[in-house]
Amino acid sequence: MSTPRYTDLVQSLPATVPFVGPETQERARGAGFAARLGANESVFGPSPKAIAAITDAAAEAWMYGDPEVFELRHALAAHHGVAAENFVVGEGIDGLLGYLVRLLIAPGDAVVTSDGAYPTFNYHVSGFGGALHKVPYAGDREDPDALNAKAREVDAKLIYFANPDNPMGSWHDATTVQAMIDALPEGCVLALDEAYADTAPPGAIPALDMGHPRVIRFRTFSKAYGLAGLRVGYGLAAPEFITSFNKIRNHFGLGRVAQAGALAALADQDYLRSTVARIAEARDRLATIARDNGLTPLPSATNFVTIDCGRDGTFARAVLSGLVAQGIFVRMPFTPPQDRCIRVSAGTEADLDAFAAALPRALTDAVTAS
Amino acid sequence: MSTPRYTDLVQSLPATVPFVGPETQERARGAGFAARLGANESVFGPSPKAIAAITDAAAEAWMYGDPEVFELRHALAAHHGVAAENFVVGEGIDGLLGYLVRLLIAPGDAVVTSDGAYPTFNYHVSGFGGALHKVPYAGDREDPDALNAKAREVDAKLIYFANPDNPMGSWHDATTVQAMIDALPEGCVLALDEAYADTAPPGAIPALDMGHPRVIRFRTFSKAYGLAGLRVGYGLAAPEFITSFNKIRNHFGLGRVAQAGALAALADQDYLRSTVARIAEARDRLATIARDNGLTPLPSATNFVTIDCGRDGTFARAVLSGLVAQGIFVRMPFTPPQDRCIRVSAGTEADLDAFAAALPRALTDAVTAS
Repeated sequence: MSTPRYTDLVQSLPATVPFVGPETQERARGAGFAARLGANESVFGPSPKAIAAITDAAAEAWMYGDPEVFELRHALAAHHGVAAENFVVGEGIDGLLGYLVRLLIAPGDAVVTSDGAYPTFNYHVSGFGGALHKVPYAGDREDPDALNAKAREVDAKLIYFANPDNPMGSWHDATTVQAMIDALPEGCVLALDEAYADTAPPGAIPALDMGHPRVIRFRTFSKAYGLAGLRVGYGLAAPEFITSFNKIRNHFGLGRVAQAGALAALADQDYLRSTVARIAEARDRLATIARDNGLTPLPSATNFVTIDCGRDGTFARAVLSGLVAQGIFVRMPFTPPQDRCIRVSAGTEADLDAFAAALPRALTDAVTAS
Repeated sequence: MSTPRYTDLVQSLPATVPFVGPETQERARGAGFAARLGANESVFGPSPKAIAAITDAAAEAWMYGDPEVFELRHALAAHHGVAAENFVVGEGIDGLLGYLVRLLIAPGDAVVTSDGAYPTFNYHVSGFGGALHKVPYAGDREDPDALNAKAREVDAKLIYFANPDNPMGSWHDATTVQAMIDALPEGCVLALDEAYADTAPPGAIPALDMGHPRVIRFRTFSKAYGLAGLRVGYGLAAPEFITSFNKIRNHFGLGRVAQAGALAALADQDYLRSTVARIAEARDRLATIARDNGLTPLPSATNFVTIDCGRDGTFARAVLSGLVAQGIFVRMPFTPPQDRCIRVSAGTEADLDAFAAALPRALTDAVTAS
């Protein structure tokens, strides 16, 4: 019998799955991880008020979520001092990036990102047939001028730029980001991924000016808010831009439980502040552990620290393997020269004790193997 | 400044939002609904074990869900007696239908459905530029032969067929459905939406034969399992077909909390059986209420009863408005002649008391207005 007639585009996509979760690694190892420090989750957990809200919502889980996400959008509007019409809330930034690419990119359309930046964005661009153009990092930071210049050169419809950056933890100050926005080529949309805005230092995040018709900024409850397991992210943009998402989004895609949890988390800014303080402490300790082992911690505006292992990608991959073999889940950048680093999320004291205990052997074994 | 350069396809899509949730109606009314009987949710709620699992998972909500959905897929495999490789789990059937359409439909590709069937499917087809061909219902049921014949005529890549059907509550027996599968045109995929399989009578659901390369069946935790607010649905198909979803799906789209809730709900089949029994009782009472008011309840294999109001769509819309004005959330079919009916979900005794109390005035007012 004949098989399904997939679109030409789908037939051109790779069959391999680009996303390997820690659970898959645990099943392959036959053992759980002692420390889960690879996905930039918040080990400090969500606000107790968010936990209570999820618990309360569980009994109401028989009801679909409000497709307008009215309460959460209005709470976000009050929190950020902009209008509810400036928000689209969706199934994590991942889901929203998929919608954004679908809105803009037909097969062959040009898109610009940094070589080594967020792979899920690239996955969506490929998935809609976009032509991806990459510019290198400059000094372990994304390069705003190069991104704009490349976009102008290839007539890109979309640029992806994360500030602070993942996987390097680096950032630009608000003035630089605003200058990039001001110099954005005509007809080009800037997807400004601010997933790590909550952990950024003062002065790194430009004011929320919703007047630009082609800038969309993304925030999430998956990082500092500690709710990765609910899948709630949001985009901020001009109302006309936001409205376009309604043409294609899964209107009932955000469940009632997720909306309730995010709403309660947003309301508990004290808890967010306490988490951010704990993340800062953990970053300091990660830096100390790195230095104690002769490695170089990079400055971080995120909930992780990227650690320069001092050699090439082969060496860093060996260090990473040595950590994973000892039950420490960490990840690393994919692209040279950034792949000389490993990336370690902020952890509890116990997590970081485990990392500190495992790192020397991972390094020794990596040196021996090289 | 220039606006975003949307794709030609997106520019062609309507800006109006096709989905109005009950919360939107409540905000417009300035009052909540006394009975929520319009979205075919399960007012009987999820299993207490699912509620407990969601509560337990809340504290772990800082972790992303397993992108392979390993545990749930394996539990589903054991439950249904097929392999884990036959399952794709996603953000509700709505989300999975979107992926399915994206896999198969490029602009201009032919798709067949019934006139008056699931609007969200049509939304996805339009959203990917498909050419939608509709066949009428036959005797308030979908017409399998007509669907296959139309698909053959227009060389469709995809047919949508729901058994049992929403919005009519009708169904075909397994032999008829299997005959439709056996006669499926070459190169055409059948999306067999079995969202209401759990409430269907014995003999309505064909055996799960995963050997056909172009049949995908959809099930959900949103109906009888009472977990619409978690957004978990799944597709069952041949492994090669299932694998294709991995090329485009949001791999981290299904959160940890949702996976935990669905897993616990699946494990509590006793609770599912008790819910199905309560749904059956509610259907009987809805039929009685309809008859007491001189209306005709249609036979139902679902968790709702479609009630023939005995006149045309204008009249039924007036009845519906009269119910909504009295705080009873119900919906109705969109398309003549099925729009002579209103559709009322199974409710608690209190819900049905409220419906019974409101219906006479809604009918009287509708008669007066006509």
